[in-house]
Amino acid sequence: MKLYESAATPSCRRVSIFLKLIGTEVDRVSVDLKGGENITPEFQAKSASGTVPLLELDDGTNISESVAICRYFDHQVPNSANLFGAPGLESAQVEMWHRIVEFQGLIAGFQAFRNITGFYSDRENCVSEWGEESKSRAIAFLDKLDARLSHSSFLAGDNLSVADITAFLFINLMKGAFKVDIEEGYSHIHVWHTKLGAMPEFQ
Amino acid sequence: MKLYESAATPSCRRVSIFLKLIGTEVDRVSVDLKGGENITPEFQAKSASGTVPLLELDDGTNISESVAICRYFDHQVPNSANLFGAPGLESAQVEMWHRIVEFQGLIAGFQAFRNITGFYSDRENCVSEWGEESKSRAIAFLDKLDARLSHSSFLAGDNLSVADITAFLFINLMKGAFKVDIEEGYSHIHVWHTKLGAMPEFQ
Repeated sequence: MKLYESAATPSCRRVSIFLKLIGTEVDRVSVDLKGGENITPEFQAKSASGTVPLLELDDGTNISESVAICRYFDHQVPNSANLFGAPGLESAQVEMWHRIVEFQGLIAGFQAFRNITGFYSDRENCVSEWGEESKSRAIAFLDKLDARLSHSSFLAGDNLSVADITAFLFINLMKGAFKVDIEEGYSHIHVWHTKLGAMPEFQ
Repeated sequence: MKLYESAATPSCRRVSIFLKLIGTEVDRVSVDLKGGENITPEFQAKSASGTVPLLELDDGTNISESVAICRYFDHQVPNSANLFGAPGLESAQVEMWHRIVEFQGLIAGFQAFRNITGFYSDRENCVSEWGEESKSRAIAFLDKLDARLSHSSFLAGDNLSVADITAFLFINLMKGAFKVDIEEGYSHIHVWHTKLGAMPEFQ
């Protein structure tokens, strides 16, 4: 089994943090995104989404999409981390918060980054006005996230979940790409982010 | 238990089709989106995502996000529909295709529709250039979907799944909002869409 990745990207970090939290490892193959290794015909034939990370199983089956890869490992590796929540209400609440932070946070942040910086302008049309609008929406979402974390230890409730991993990566993006001062402006996010950042799995 | 919905929207239809497929029903409360009933403080206090559909349980717990609501019912209602796939590889493949069609298809289609038509311009900034770019991306995705359905009965494999529900709604959006001629241009999508459309659950 091999995991094709570009280790620093949020989607690949999501899988790496998840694997550490459930206590497993996998062989890695590094893919150079800027050099276009992910847009070769060979890679595209393996990856249904066309993106990294991509998990290749020993029988040649390929799984793309970071959350799909996490779900696969969560089933294969006996663990008590419960990162998708216990079946029933808890898993619904994890799904709910995961989708909220992904759609209103991370995707807005990605669209802001790509359209403002033109990082992939060799392979996609960029619309800077949409980049700025997306940045505004991602920043507006921080208030909602801060309010949620003012009365909840973790995003989906009392337990750490995959929604926290995604939210952690969203906050890193906002700090790194857009220099948002989380400590100054969002005290509850700051406490939660510092708590996660101190865990070895989130390094 | 009550489901707040605006029945014609893709997200609400997703829940309705899912409930029919697993063979259950729920009381409904209609929400007027254009009239702003979903942006009142009362509704926003219930809905963590700020959107419909919203499921209110008898103990006052609220679940928003259509896929989270589907997961909740899938656990509560004994059924053999297996719409999220059997645990393990199958559920990973359903998750993979569901995310692909949602991110590359439905979200692009939504962003195209909202930014081109200004449907919610009373409550969000619209960027028409991004609308056109999103429309191009959504149309480009149709080739990928058609290729997948040329050798797979359903999107994630041999069995109907939640990924097909989302893809069905994406195709309806492309036909309805953008007058894309699926029958003429995408023969494999057309066969699959006609097959689903003939099922009573998809009416």
